[in-house]
Amino acid sequence: MRATVMYEAGDVRVEEVPDATIEEPTDVVLRVTRACICGSDLWPYKQMAANEDGTPNPMGHEFIGIVEEAGPDVTTVAAGDLVVAPFVYSDGSCAFCEEGLQTSCVNGGVWGRGGVGGGQAEAIRVPHADGTLVKLPVDPDDALMPALLTLSDVMGTGHHAAISARVAPGSTAAVIGDGAVGLCGVIAAKRLGAERILLLGHHSDRTDLGSELGATDVIAERGREATERVRELTGGEGAHSVLECVGYEDAFQTAMRIVRPGGAVGRVGVPQMQALPAAGIGFVNNITVSGGIAPARAYIDELMPDVLEGRIEPGRVFDSTVDLEGVPGGYDAMNDRESLKVLVKP
Amino acid sequence: MRATVMYEAGDVRVEEVPDATIEEPTDVVLRVTRACICGSDLWPYKQMAANEDGTPNPMGHEFIGIVEEAGPDVTTVAAGDLVVAPFVYSDGSCAFCEEGLQTSCVNGGVWGRGGVGGGQAEAIRVPHADGTLVKLPVDPDDALMPALLTLSDVMGTGHHAAISARVAPGSTAAVIGDGAVGLCGVIAAKRLGAERILLLGHHSDRTDLGSELGATDVIAERGREATERVRELTGGEGAHSVLECVGYEDAFQTAMRIVRPGGAVGRVGVPQMQALPAAGIGFVNNITVSGGIAPARAYIDELMPDVLEGRIEPGRVFDSTVDLEGVPGGYDAMNDRESLKVLVKP
Repeated sequence: MRATVMYEAGDVRVEEVPDATIEEPTDVVLRVTRACICGSDLWPYKQMAANEDGTPNPMGHEFIGIVEEAGPDVTTVAAGDLVVAPFVYSDGSCAFCEEGLQTSCVNGGVWGRGGVGGGQAEAIRVPHADGTLVKLPVDPDDALMPALLTLSDVMGTGHHAAISARVAPGSTAAVIGDGAVGLCGVIAAKRLGAERILLLGHHSDRTDLGSELGATDVIAERGREATERVRELTGGEGAHSVLECVGYEDAFQTAMRIVRPGGAVGRVGVPQMQALPAAGIGFVNNITVSGGIAPARAYIDELMPDVLEGRIEPGRVFDSTVDLEGVPGGYDAMNDRESLKVLVKP
Repeated sequence: MRATVMYEAGDVRVEEVPDATIEEPTDVVLRVTRACICGSDLWPYKQMAANEDGTPNPMGHEFIGIVEEAGPDVTTVAAGDLVVAPFVYSDGSCAFCEEGLQTSCVNGGVWGRGGVGGGQAEAIRVPHADGTLVKLPVDPDDALMPALLTLSDVMGTGHHAAISARVAPGSTAAVIGDGAVGLCGVIAAKRLGAERILLLGHHSDRTDLGSELGATDVIAERGREATERVRELTGGEGAHSVLECVGYEDAFQTAMRIVRPGGAVGRVGVPQMQALPAAGIGFVNNITVSGGIAPARAYIDELMPDVLEGRIEPGRVFDSTVDLEGVPGGYDAMNDRESLKVLVKP
């Protein structure tokens, strides 16, 4: 079968790989019908060193597919079912899964590691299918496919930022980052009732979309000027909730400077630093810092009804579509900021 | 009147200063009946550079006293009342005070700064007396004085660590630090229902007291060995709640390594670093970091009944008493770890 692999930074290829097969009785093999490229795929695209043995890494962790074959212990899905997978697989039964933190599942793992393939492929083996997959009550070519695909990661991640930042009805939320996660953060903040949503971003095409999705104010300034602008807009106090959707040190620094005393920063940007700056400001102002890898699996049940009924439209973060052979070009386009987020139809 | 001042690191003196007087209609003048030396007083005692103009800083931010005179706008206390003051004064009416975050009061401030004296003195002017002071329903020499005095800071700070670390009934809490704040953290964790309380500390006289106050396990190891010991004691998962009561980088590092995925670190140790380490571990494990300067004022009402009825005994953190002239020696004793916490009877 064909699958996307990365050899090192900048070197993404679609190649023939061994077919996905059932290996454990709890596995499912999916034929992938939709996948996409994640902003977090760009970190290895910029930085990955070649593996010592010369083998590439399978890529892709967001996908929807049709069950082709289910292992004998799988009970919740069957051949023919259309399902969405979160970006971490999990057994669904350990203490962490029961608490809704499937990203810490004791038997879980991430796609593309440890003998498990990636989702930017024709097919994929899904471990712990019962704990991982969620059935979709629509046809495989339903117009909602892009929106439903975001439940695998980006919408759940934006929602996690908003939950971690404790967005509450009537509050002021600031979203740092106008990438796909930041825009889903805007959607999530609005959905949770934020009255004012400040979007900090520099790319007008993206912030324009952010305004359509619910941002009430766009702040294009950077650094200290951005901080001052937020203070002006919030009566000098800062935002109750800040969604940090970037991961760079300066973005986190800004988050700590624009959050209101007693407020919370929800961080979902993959941290590109060893330590979190502004330890002193956070202490004086009693800032809560929460978040991390989003337990997307936990949020699918909560968010799916809103997607199905059109109350939220996270599918709008996709602005281009490629077939499987077009995936390497999709990486280029996202890395060059020519595309916000690329949908893949294998 | 006599008051304690610090000229620079290591140079604490008791000197004649101008008498405390009413300056604003919302002021009260208190005759101090009990004060104490705080672990946080040891930071300037180790590090303070002399002020450029040669003047010293007034010291002391934990005290109980009797109202000598109240300004014309003061309504909640009157001459003769015995009151306790939290370690930050606050107006009691701004948005932050109403939310219980008096440490961020827009008209608040700390003792010993901006023309306000310190509590290690015969008397003190209390700004915003209505918002700041809380009446004590006992006599000035009641045996509960040491315990009630801890409501000014150290017990409220331990409680803040526990609240910020989300200690819940049946949970496992780890307390880092066997100083007075850490020991009050043990009391607070027990009070909030923690089933298991792990106390990380190296001073057996202090950890022995910690065991009496509620710690179920004492971990005297350091660094990686301490982390391994906590993992052993928690089935490999870590503690739900970690109370970081030190403020050094390695203590915070340990906190992030011993907290259970999805758990929380409540930090009340004054941070001695610019950035919080372990940004990546915290992200992968979805750790919440909360806390800061404790809004002791908010907690007095909640904690006082337990002190008055003997359900908690935070007064046990005091192990020596001095008069006002003995305060400089008290700093020495605490700095040399000869005393855990020094009570002052002016």
